Amino acid sequence: MARPLPEGFAAAVREVVGPEHIRADVASLEAYGQDALEQGHPPDLVVIPATTREVAAIARLCNERLVPLVVRGAGTGYTGGAVPTRGGVVVSMERLNRIIEIDETNLLAIVEPNVVTADLQRAVEKAGLFYPPDPASLDTSSIGGNVAECAGGPRAFKYGTTKRYVLALEAVLPTGEIVETGSKAVKSVVGYDLTQLLVGSEGTLAIITKITLRLIPKPPARATLLALFGDIQAAVDAVTALIRRRVVPASLELVDADSLSAVRDHLGREVVPPGTGAVLIVEADGMQSAVDDEIDRVADGCREVGAMRVSVAADENDRDRLWNVRRLLSASLMATGLLKINHDVVVPRGRVPDLFRVIQELKKTFGLRIAAFGHAGDGNIHVNLMVDRTNPRELARAKQAERALFERVVALEGSISGEHGIGFAKAPYIGIELSPEEIALMKRVKAAFDPNGILNPGKIFPA
Amino acid sequence: MARPLPEGFAAAVREVVGPEHIRADVASLEAYGQDALEQGHPPDLVVIPATTREVAAIARLCNERLVPLVVRGAGTGYTGGAVPTRGGVVVSMERLNRIIEIDETNLLAIVEPNVVTADLQRAVEKAGLFYPPDPASLDTSSIGGNVAECAGGPRAFKYGTTKRYVLALEAVLPTGEIVETGSKAVKSVVGYDLTQLLVGSEGTLAIITKITLRLIPKPPARATLLALFGDIQAAVDAVTALIRRRVVPASLELVDADSLSAVRDHLGREVVPPGTGAVLIVEADGMQSAVDDEIDRVADGCREVGAMRVSVAADENDRDRLWNVRRLLSASLMATGLLKINHDVVVPRGRVPDLFRVIQELKKTFGLRIAAFGHAGDGNIHVNLMVDRTNPRELARAKQAERALFERVVALEGSISGEHGIGFAKAPYIGIELSPEEIALMKRVKAAFDPNGILNPGKIFPA
Repeated sequence: MARPLPEGFAAAVREVVGPEHIRADVASLEAYGQDALEQGHPPDLVVIPATTREVAAIARLCNERLVPLVVRGAGTGYTGGAVPTRGGVVVSMERLNRIIEIDETNLLAIVEPNVVTADLQRAVEKAGLFYPPDPASLDTSSIGGNVAECAGGPRAFKYGTTKRYVLALEAVLPTGEIVETGSKAVKSVVGYDLTQLLVGSEGTLAIITKITLRLIPKPPARATLLALFGDIQAAVDAVTALIRRRVVPASLELVDADSLSAVRDHLGREVVPPGTGAVLIVEADGMQSAVDDEIDRVADGCREVGAMRVSVAADENDRDRLWNVRRLLSASLMATGLLKINHDVVVPRGRVPDLFRVIQELKKTFGLRIAAFGHAGDGNIHVNLMVDRTNPRELARAKQAERALFERVVALEGSISGEHGIGFAKAPYIGIELSPEEIALMKRVKAAFDPNGILNPGKIFPA
Repeated sequence: MARPLPEGFAAAVREVVGPEHIRADVASLEAYGQDALEQGHPPDLVVIPATTREVAAIARLCNERLVPLVVRGAGTGYTGGAVPTRGGVVVSMERLNRIIEIDETNLLAIVEPNVVTADLQRAVEKAGLFYPPDPASLDTSSIGGNVAECAGGPRAFKYGTTKRYVLALEAVLPTGEIVETGSKAVKSVVGYDLTQLLVGSEGTLAIITKITLRLIPKPPARATLLALFGDIQAAVDAVTALIRRRVVPASLELVDADSLSAVRDHLGREVVPPGTGAVLIVEADGMQSAVDDEIDRVADGCREVGAMRVSVAADENDRDRLWNVRRLLSASLMATGLLKINHDVVVPRGRVPDLFRVIQELKKTFGLRIAAFGHAGDGNIHVNLMVDRTNPRELARAKQAERALFERVVALEGSISGEHGIGFAKAPYIGIELSPEEIALMKRVKAAFDPNGILNPGKIFPA
């Protein structure tokens, strides 16, 4: 339950950041109490610091007075990681938004947390460099949020998720100390890997204030292929067949029929020929000659397992159009007016066909519309339960389907979240995947960072 | 200081593993008291369990009776990670040596810790798959040790170190619980990333009993290039020039003149033409067409910055011969009869020229012979202080040079260890790189795993 802020607390915080960087009006508290999940609890106070020292001073105040501290980036997360569960302070990182350095000699970038992902990508590409992680939200999400949740995206198939690119962090502990983890060197094994521990820790261990990212040379060429299939089974069989042939392009995305029809309704025009039951979008990148070879192998593979049609994007516009369909999926599903409950489950990459069998079963058993799409190459599928929010019985069935989905995914040796995190949305379910001993160990690690439990309470662990 | 084992302890351990899997004779205790560092303290007892349950039972006994427990793999480490600092029990993993599964559908391998790295590589390559990490010791080192230290190798330049391939672990906590971290899925963000925390934790947090590794398709082609330079400066300039041209082959190895002459003396024949001051060994892999392109770009780059000669290995034998020179470096330096104090320091990749200036300075200031070679593309150079072990004054100068090296590397924003770990050999120096707050935080993390401090005491943290 929410407790009022301790006496004098707001005044002390105001002194740290200045009165113009505090929000306590109802509209602001409401706005900062929600993120892309559209749920949450308003904070009692919003603080907008400009420096690491200010962040540290706020942390110390919160720690001394036992006030919950929730860090907020761009608020694009799907599991409620950036919003309070019971009041306290939201520390918004919006003023920590500079690209500090793009270091071309050492192939790295140093950024403050609220740099927008796509802005960083554009900046480094100007220097012939490349920052691969590409969550669908990249035009609005921040690098800090990407790091806190360990964001993925289509290119994770070839390039890995955010964690692979984080070399070093500056972070403020909830007790106020400023620490630096990792190194500008690409290898470092001095003490424990706190960098990788903080990546994906969802703002529960420390407040990230500076991020050093490894960059790679920009691939000189790329090509995008669209393969149409008669039904979902043919498409997932193609994914397995490609992996069996050892074809690992940069991206291997799958979109099912329900998702495609939502895009059609949203755009008001057909995006694929009628009768298409599923599509694969495949991108290859690298040296031109290798890209050509790889796209040929993908095309052959898709045709041999029964693709209705295979086409390669002719130019940049054509490619953008293709990827635009992929990026519009979430917006299109939301535009249906139905409640979109998005679960980014993940299975071992060869078990995507099994996962789709589970989805078919859930549709039948619970009488739900389910739209599924995502990073098939990684086994990471966004399973969207599409629910009439005015229908309590459908909502209840969705709740049952959610648990059933997680249980089946874990039975397939998968994981209940591939890239969105747990937040509070999935916290009740982590016991399906983790043992009591594992949860207890994680709680001890949490206490090693945050002895008073002030950082982002109510997240990850079941109440 | 060593304390005798508590009464009844050895008998209780004997009951767990059977009397034939215990060693307490002096020769065994001596043997298990040393690793490749050639220093250490003999244990009081060596235990050789066969199962995770046996490991857990031993851990519980050690934890209850406060007996130090040191895990040993193949004993190829250079920082003393696998040997006691003050007696106790060595748990040798030599019987946990099975490749449990090579899963071609999901592109992963499940192994027990004492599988030899090269054996795993050969097994997965038969299935058209690839496990990239290639420490120089790969013919004798174990995967468990590679994971505990986060081993690197030449291919880390393109493929990353061991950590990038560890998906999941089964581990025994020092308090006896068996936990499973990570997932067979390639992405998972459920709770904290304990997998990456355990990788590189040098046996101080938990005992790793099973390892799930991500595999990738085997690159269909590769090519190896040798470039000869008149002096070290020309060679390191070439490294910087290649990185500036965004050429990132699979490996980019540098060997200096002192190292080359040690190989010549060891093999009894010239390995490079007289007058060669340094060489680069460059390997590219991938699709044949891309490999050809890349090797051409490397060759052009090397020539333009003044390589005396550039040649591409004509066939597999030629390539093996080249890599053999690289792999023989450590043995050749040891064969000099001098004490080889090997420090695998690492700097941001563009600062390799600065690091070599530091090495030149140290040679002059401390009057030492220093042989340097290593993973230049990663900024990770093996700096070998070659010392007459019968000369106490030279030994003392080496000690001073060691500290000076670490201070200079940290001043270059590098790290005192890129892939060998800290063990006890470098423990006195971690304060050069880490702040007191960072060390205190790491100790709290250690306590979250190992409340009684029984696991590998004396490692990582200064006494």
